[in-house]
Amino acid sequence: MEIIQSVRWSDDGLGVRIIDQRLLPSRFVEYDLRTLDDVANAITSLAVRGAPAIGIAGAMGLVVVLAPNAADARDDLLARARDAATIIRKTRPTAVNLPWALARMIDRASRTNGDGRAIVAAMREEATAILEEDRAMCRRIGQQGASLLSDGARVLTHCNAGALATGGIGTALAAIYVAAERGRDVEVFVDESRPLLQGSRLTAWELQRAGIRVTVLTDGMAASLMREKHIDICLVGADRIAANGDVANKIGTYNLAIAARYHDVPFVVAAPTSTVDSATATGAGIVIEQRSADEVTRIDARQTAPAGVCVYNPAFDVTPSELVSAIVTDRGIFKPPYRFS
Amino acid sequence: MEIIQSVRWSDDGLGVRIIDQRLLPSRFVEYDLRTLDDVANAITSLAVRGAPAIGIAGAMGLVVVLAPNAADARDDLLARARDAATIIRKTRPTAVNLPWALARMIDRASRTNGDGRAIVAAMREEATAILEEDRAMCRRIGQQGASLLSDGARVLTHCNAGALATGGIGTALAAIYVAAERGRDVEVFVDESRPLLQGSRLTAWELQRAGIRVTVLTDGMAASLMREKHIDICLVGADRIAANGDVANKIGTYNLAIAARYHDVPFVVAAPTSTVDSATATGAGIVIEQRSADEVTRIDARQTAPAGVCVYNPAFDVTPSELVSAIVTDRGIFKPPYRFS
Repeated sequence: MEIIQSVRWSDDGLGVRIIDQRLLPSRFVEYDLRTLDDVANAITSLAVRGAPAIGIAGAMGLVVVLAPNAADARDDLLARARDAATIIRKTRPTAVNLPWALARMIDRASRTNGDGRAIVAAMREEATAILEEDRAMCRRIGQQGASLLSDGARVLTHCNAGALATGGIGTALAAIYVAAERGRDVEVFVDESRPLLQGSRLTAWELQRAGIRVTVLTDGMAASLMREKHIDICLVGADRIAANGDVANKIGTYNLAIAARYHDVPFVVAAPTSTVDSATATGAGIVIEQRSADEVTRIDARQTAPAGVCVYNPAFDVTPSELVSAIVTDRGIFKPPYRFS
Repeated sequence: MEIIQSVRWSDDGLGVRIIDQRLLPSRFVEYDLRTLDDVANAITSLAVRGAPAIGIAGAMGLVVVLAPNAADARDDLLARARDAATIIRKTRPTAVNLPWALARMIDRASRTNGDGRAIVAAMREEATAILEEDRAMCRRIGQQGASLLSDGARVLTHCNAGALATGGIGTALAAIYVAAERGRDVEVFVDESRPLLQGSRLTAWELQRAGIRVTVLTDGMAASLMREKHIDICLVGADRIAANGDVANKIGTYNLAIAARYHDVPFVVAAPTSTVDSATATGAGIVIEQRSADEVTRIDARQTAPAGVCVYNPAFDVTPSELVSAIVTDRGIFKPPYRFS
């Protein structure tokens, strides 16, 4: 099975090789980020996307940006590192992974003794560790989640909680990949996930490439699918989980959870334990980003709604924990009532 | 308030004036159908759409096609009428309105004494009657439905059950138009209704044009909308209603009904009594048309899913009557348990 690797070192180690997700699913193109502009543009333009993948690309990007200046004096290099990190940090405002990864890189740099060369080497080690830790975490989530998927399982998922969003094999999709590796026949159905179509563009593409049977539907078809065809489990990712188990995830997840409950289909969330925000008691405390009307009223050049119409376009919704059957993490499977600490 | 008229006689009476719905919402263009090719192409290409509107356009189209031959002998004209009706009937296979309207036209022609001129005049009268009856029926549905919408009502609808789909002011939207005419402030939210986007392209356009506040959302956002903003009622149309009150309507309706139930929002269907198919006991007996994968995998030139991926694309779904709070018809408002005869 070929599971794609969304972010990695280029063959010569001087660049960060990413899959250009803007071109999917029509074209599969990888290219190398080698300059600060390359790194910032790739994140801003969504060539690389998915909170963990962005954090990794930012950390690794910082290394390739600094490498040509390894001969600099220690203080010069540290100053350059901080400046570059600031620019990379500002590319996307929302996900916590990017500032977290960059802070960890700068911390490692500051704590490293020696000259510029030593600092760059330490930072390369740190970025590689961030990537490898993410890969290991995805794998553990997958191993936990695979236990929920028996041979012949039919899974409905939403958006992209896969290899394209992480440094590893994803979160929700990790469970599917591991089950398939264990020889189980798993069939996947995926909501296209309007407005940005991450389900049809990305999830369908990476599953198809891995040889896993996948069927695309529009978001409004999920209930009909559950009624007409048998679905064993809904399996989705999470952007943030409140202390009580309320789950913020891509818009449409809550709709799906309600339909799953009505059809008695288990609704399961897969995410690293770092997604649990214990400082937030319930989903009511999660601020939801409202995005541009254009995402709903235009598809490329095509106008799909009248000019000037009002648009409701939240990026995420909150699924109350009462609808969540289980939360699969790298540390095990949690069941209601949710207590993560 | 300006409610559009989707089908009518052209000013000179020699054509059928339709709104070209293919160009909405970007451009509002009306044009006249004057030949058999014009009529057939307009229906095939979805320039005119909506089951009642198609039936009306077919009936009126038959008149303008025959009018230049009014000097023909009686039998020649009747033969020409049958041939033209056959061609028009074949343009769309599904809706019952088109064959029903054409059969009614041919029946009237056959029963009319006199020469070709007399027959064409009778057919013009019959087509006008079909249009006027539809207008009157929409108005009655609107009057019944408006009683459910108080001042300040916030309505969530799906697809297009409006003036663009009928000869009159629609079915679900008729209730909104009549409430607005009565001076009530009604605000409407509409699912874009993937894959064909009739909600964002058509419903938003005709409501905006009538001066009614309208907000577009993607189909997956409906549950979030009900949770975050107050929604008083979901109001949708129907393509077919079984004897027990199960409702076949545009795909996504069933999803919406489940979300409405979860949020204790009344879910109301508006349709002419002719939509009730008493020969079909329950929704299980309604055959659902499966449509082309292209509708889901492409949006104009843009490929939105990987080549060759499987697609689930039913045109309609069935909402079980247990989720339907009321059915508004031209003959009154029915409540569960549904008995229409």
